[in-house]
Amino acid sequence: MDKNFKITIEYDGTDFHGWQRQKEDRSIQGKIEKVLEIITTKKISLTGSGRTDAGVHALGQSANFKCDTELTPETFMKGLNRLLPHDIVILSCERVKDDFHARFNTKSKVYNYRILNQPLPSAILRKYVWHISKELHVGAMRTAIEHIKGKHDFSAFEGSGSPRSHSIRNMIKAQIADNKEGLLVVELEADGFLRFMVRNIVSTLVNVGLGKISPDDFNKILLSKDRKHAGATAPPQGLFLIKVIYE
Amino acid sequence: MDKNFKITIEYDGTDFHGWQRQKEDRSIQGKIEKVLEIITTKKISLTGSGRTDAGVHALGQSANFKCDTELTPETFMKGLNRLLPHDIVILSCERVKDDFHARFNTKSKVYNYRILNQPLPSAILRKYVWHISKELHVGAMRTAIEHIKGKHDFSAFEGSGSPRSHSIRNMIKAQIADNKEGLLVVELEADGFLRFMVRNIVSTLVNVGLGKISPDDFNKILLSKDRKHAGATAPPQGLFLIKVIYE
Repeated sequence: MDKNFKITIEYDGTDFHGWQRQKEDRSIQGKIEKVLEIITTKKISLTGSGRTDAGVHALGQSANFKCDTELTPETFMKGLNRLLPHDIVILSCERVKDDFHARFNTKSKVYNYRILNQPLPSAILRKYVWHISKELHVGAMRTAIEHIKGKHDFSAFEGSGSPRSHSIRNMIKAQIADNKEGLLVVELEADGFLRFMVRNIVSTLVNVGLGKISPDDFNKILLSKDRKHAGATAPPQGLFLIKVIYE
Repeated sequence: MDKNFKITIEYDGTDFHGWQRQKEDRSIQGKIEKVLEIITTKKISLTGSGRTDAGVHALGQSANFKCDTELTPETFMKGLNRLLPHDIVILSCERVKDDFHARFNTKSKVYNYRILNQPLPSAILRKYVWHISKELHVGAMRTAIEHIKGKHDFSAFEGSGSPRSHSIRNMIKAQIADNKEGLLVVELEADGFLRFMVRNIVSTLVNVGLGKISPDDFNKILLSKDRKHAGATAPPQGLFLIKVIYE
């Protein structure tokens, strides 16, 4: 009888064409499924909490897979970490109830977006931040970000052509941290995210920080529900899926 | 008449075969010299404060070059950052006295070595730390590191075949910071470093932390002046040249 396993995953998205399995290109889902097949000698389908796009990182992506096996979660974890490339690390593996589904049982997700705000770029951080050389007005960005808290139709920040039943999401947490010199972290938690939603919110916030639009304009963009008013999608390398929270 | 320019440089050593210019392989010195030639249309020789090995990073390497030019330091800096690959960033460029020499005028250098001490490796940090999964006894390492402070013959920690007049160096600062969870940073400042010296000190400190040798054994290794007693050279990716201090 099939057992159900949940794994949490850290990955460096730099050299991947995103989460989703693809015929030719390197994907996180594809790499893990391939190793699961080596370990179990069975074709196994891995269900992620959702996709991440090319270049996006994760400190705590979640996924589940079903398999008729005598192998323990500890054995799966050791085997996966031994056989996976070093840009994927399995942080945990556990047995879960048969009806657990990594996508449908999601309660909320936490994303961070990292901006390096200083005159010069960083050689070391270049694959993990969006570098903005002009000084950002963080106070104005904080005023703007207040507007997205709570339930809203986030159509204005949605990527085109994304499949979903509706665009209303509940933004549980939205704040900007600036602990480290030059580094701004936009921290968002919501019950779900539309495609490109974080990156479109961030680029529009950056327009506020640059003084191109006001915090009030930011709110008008949200209320317009019209994608063409928001900023261009922010680059992928600043985005981290921090964790997936389940019921 | 030739003018003398000093530059400070940040680089991600991951994709370089070290600082030093090489015929075939990608080097930091080689890349910068090539761009200086594009900017000035002259062959320019860049003098670094010293070499860093393949995979070693720098947050503040220093170098100087001489050139008969009307270009300002600001123009050099902009041109270099525009034309260099993104894993090299020029942090500053300034005119210096004719007799300034980036290697011979060094007063001291600061290196950090980063160890990730937790059961699992990190996908995101893998190119910037040495991962040690077994728990290190940091107290013992701190007792050991006290022994290298001050003037010593560091032959025991020297790489073989390195050219130098003598092996006595003055260790001005030697400490271990552990601010961030799981991350240990060995911070060293000396008036000079022998080849592989930091990485050999760190590997021997790790042997102390693992309980393989005692802090007193560490001191005996230092006093033995015999390379074969120290640990194997620690991997390059944990090492950062932080800054070069001049008279």
